[in-house]
Amino acid sequence: MNFYPCLCATYRIESGPADIERIARFVAYEQTVELPEGLVQDPRVREHVVGRVSEIRPAGPGAYDVVVRYAAHLVSGQMGQLLNLVFGNVSMLKKIRLTGLELPRAVLDAFAGPKYGIDGLRRMTGVYNRPLLATAVKPRGLPDEQLAELAYAFALGGGDIVKDDQNLVAPDFEAFKQRVDLCAKAVDRANQQTGRNCLYFPHLAANADDLERYAEFVQRLGLRGVLACPINLGVDTARKLCSDYGLAMMAHPSLTGAFTSGEDHGIAHDVLLGTLFRLAGADISIFPAPGGRFDYSTEQVRGITRALRDPLGALKPALPCPAGGMRYDSIPALSREYGAEAVFLIGGSLLGHSDDLTASTRAYQARIAEHFTPRLEEPEPFLESACEFNPGEGEGVHTLLHFREGFHWTERSDRPYKPSETTPAELGFAGVRRVELIGRNGEQTDFDLRYFELATGGYTSLEKHLHTHVIITVRGQGTLLLDERQMTLKPMDVAYVRPLEVHQLRNEGSEPYGFFCVVDRERDRPMRP
Amino acid sequence: MNFYPCLCATYRIESGPADIERIARFVAYEQTVELPEGLVQDPRVREHVVGRVSEIRPAGPGAYDVVVRYAAHLVSGQMGQLLNLVFGNVSMLKKIRLTGLELPRAVLDAFAGPKYGIDGLRRMTGVYNRPLLATAVKPRGLPDEQLAELAYAFALGGGDIVKDDQNLVAPDFEAFKQRVDLCAKAVDRANQQTGRNCLYFPHLAANADDLERYAEFVQRLGLRGVLACPINLGVDTARKLCSDYGLAMMAHPSLTGAFTSGEDHGIAHDVLLGTLFRLAGADISIFPAPGGRFDYSTEQVRGITRALRDPLGALKPALPCPAGGMRYDSIPALSREYGAEAVFLIGGSLLGHSDDLTASTRAYQARIAEHFTPRLEEPEPFLESACEFNPGEGEGVHTLLHFREGFHWTERSDRPYKPSETTPAELGFAGVRRVELIGRNGEQTDFDLRYFELATGGYTSLEKHLHTHVIITVRGQGTLLLDERQMTLKPMDVAYVRPLEVHQLRNEGSEPYGFFCVVDRERDRPMRP
Repeated sequence: MNFYPCLCATYRIESGPADIERIARFVAYEQTVELPEGLVQDPRVREHVVGRVSEIRPAGPGAYDVVVRYAAHLVSGQMGQLLNLVFGNVSMLKKIRLTGLELPRAVLDAFAGPKYGIDGLRRMTGVYNRPLLATAVKPRGLPDEQLAELAYAFALGGGDIVKDDQNLVAPDFEAFKQRVDLCAKAVDRANQQTGRNCLYFPHLAANADDLERYAEFVQRLGLRGVLACPINLGVDTARKLCSDYGLAMMAHPSLTGAFTSGEDHGIAHDVLLGTLFRLAGADISIFPAPGGRFDYSTEQVRGITRALRDPLGALKPALPCPAGGMRYDSIPALSREYGAEAVFLIGGSLLGHSDDLTASTRAYQARIAEHFTPRLEEPEPFLESACEFNPGEGEGVHTLLHFREGFHWTERSDRPYKPSETTPAELGFAGVRRVELIGRNGEQTDFDLRYFELATGGYTSLEKHLHTHVIITVRGQGTLLLDERQMTLKPMDVAYVRPLEVHQLRNEGSEPYGFFCVVDRERDRPMRP
Repeated sequence: MNFYPCLCATYRIESGPADIERIARFVAYEQTVELPEGLVQDPRVREHVVGRVSEIRPAGPGAYDVVVRYAAHLVSGQMGQLLNLVFGNVSMLKKIRLTGLELPRAVLDAFAGPKYGIDGLRRMTGVYNRPLLATAVKPRGLPDEQLAELAYAFALGGGDIVKDDQNLVAPDFEAFKQRVDLCAKAVDRANQQTGRNCLYFPHLAANADDLERYAEFVQRLGLRGVLACPINLGVDTARKLCSDYGLAMMAHPSLTGAFTSGEDHGIAHDVLLGTLFRLAGADISIFPAPGGRFDYSTEQVRGITRALRDPLGALKPALPCPAGGMRYDSIPALSREYGAEAVFLIGGSLLGHSDDLTASTRAYQARIAEHFTPRLEEPEPFLESACEFNPGEGEGVHTLLHFREGFHWTERSDRPYKPSETTPAELGFAGVRRVELIGRNGEQTDFDLRYFELATGGYTSLEKHLHTHVIITVRGQGTLLLDERQMTLKPMDVAYVRPLEVHQLRNEGSEPYGFFCVVDRERDRPMRP
């Protein structure tokens, strides 16, 4: 008996009755210790690591469903290891398919899942009680302006989500920025006309070295999500990028067919495109629907849909997104099949419906509306970034801080130097005035610019830290104490305090001493000398 | 006719003769424009983007080999996009297998491939003219000390590479450090006794957020490589990590069976475990050899071996690594099959050979030596770090830059504004003087502090970029053009230029206009408005 939490993986294995027990045990050992049974003597390993075959039941002629229980701790909270554990090595066997995956809370709780989920996407779009209508910007090869025009026309016609085609991959960052900026502005222009909030999701694709800055760019443009191909990017890499930059993930099934399409092999559709993609943070999971270009069955896509929307630990539900050749005529059937909580991704048929994409989009939306009672609310304003960023504080971003007599600036008030909650009391100082000019008011910089002023006889704390200071004197004259040394600072002198240098600034003159101080945004706390 | 470089993908497709031509064209369109033929009217797209079916030849009953030519530029130098292009969407069809992939230099040259390759691993180990003997540290669940003891015993017996089992995944960074440090020291201790250089490759597995620091730790320990699961990590993420930290990559085939094991579906063994993994930087590619636990055929593994070792553009050859149940008795056959340029990975059989792993390892090495004339040389000392770091430039770190008349500073000379090699010629500017005060001279800051001065009539480039500017006026008076606006900047005014705001500074006055400009150290290139 296992007394610790386990996950249950069900495998459909083709085998004769004479071999199935041996194969089942082989799977349990291969996936955990990768050693023959005789070599696993340590009782801790046998008890806590080796998988257990908990059930073998016939599943039609020459086939069995084998349930293997794996200790939850073996997942180690990692998506890559979860994949490794349930299918890594046995993927190299023939006639074995992972058809079921039951995860205990001990495993589920390590995964954040969809950041926004169904509710979040409803709030972003302000669209309730009907499926969202999505299309793709394509084909690659058209000039950026033409692609942006497509996005604009779709948004103007009341489309809900316009995503890049997954083949829209830029040769470099400049090209990516150019295209995405154009499309984002186009959709924004349409949104200003419609009063709605059509979402534009660019395709997040780049070499691994560049993905962060691509995602950052998307975030800085104020876009709310991306199209991502989890298998191409790495399932957990896709998760991390979207999570770090607060982007909704519309997961594309590129390459997933390698797992799902072999009937007697691989990973079942619902497990991969449903459970695993949801664990990895997909807010929307795209898959080919029956009747389109790929022959996924109704049963398969129902499985995906359930895995995305049904309760799963504390994870938010995600939106199923049938695609792959959906048409105007598919809408009634899609509406019946998926209900309101879905995204209908319609590409070619919408583009080809008429010469006027805006009118076509309206027609498709009208067709969808026939089956629902849609409710439109004000879309949620875009307020927060998921990167740690504290927009609540500060005095706002302003282009110009006018200098005023007495070394004050418009839009900025003086602040106490070192609020008590972050400063040990013994770090003494006196007569210090501080103005947070840039960095703490919402500006996107990696540094903070502050103005400090010491009254006659004033001084800053004697301290050291890992971060450095750059000091530009602009008023009066000051003294910099630096380890054993001491030096005079005059207007426009630039001083640099190295990591861990003990330092203090003093005003030993008769007029105020003022200086700008530039420091890294990310910095350590001061220490006593 | 295509006059630009193309890559050729060969698909084995099961189909009747009536349908094969339609299916072939479907693949060519689906993988590039994902639109029906009738909707692709733009001649640029038809000519430069749509794939071309260049050959359809019968391949046995009910099967055809279809060759599709894709324009090389569609790969965009990205591994993820290469996968997407050759198999992304069609993976979701049934009865289609990517069996061949010919890449032109235009594609190959974008991929660095193995960092060390066969020669590099020879130099690291100092072992020539025979296969390397590798084993795995396992099973998970043993105390770290016991795992380290196994690594020690193997290295002491003359083993060449000891890698972590792919199930050896740590719950957190501390546990990873603990285990890897112990194993590294154990192998090091053995190496000091043997005078050889057995390599220890830990398993690089973590959540995407943590991979960098795991890799950095491995590098800092002085280890030369890692075991990595490219499909679990993301193929290009594995490449990037190994490349950034100068680590050899021993690629593990976890999950690859999802692609390779379906006989009428997926990606052929040689294409995935050979060509694609080599492109992605695998120095060693592990695969199950015939006669072991997985029934890979001789033909399949010969294909992998050729794809790893045969000439491929300028890419280094990589070592094939047969595994998956190899035994003492397999050595003669393995030796004949693979010759000297291979790694024999032997796990369970070596651990179970006797109670003395050191003696067992010696026995296995002796058995290998019977088939070769090994030569041992002094292993290459570990010298370099692969992290890029450029301490050479700049004018040195100084505590105090004294201000001098005319807005000059001691220790700092004026520099040309925007050296020509990074600036498009059309980004015009005139009458600009620049002083790099802090940041480019070795200082540890996340920002750069520069002084710019515009002569009368001078101006900076009209440009935009993602990074922001903070501008502190200190001399004269200037004009800031910002999108449609224009504003005057006077001494001690502080201005902030937002991301992507088009901006220019002009001096329309009669005296020099000088300002400090603070920018992030990491920043993107300027774009035209």
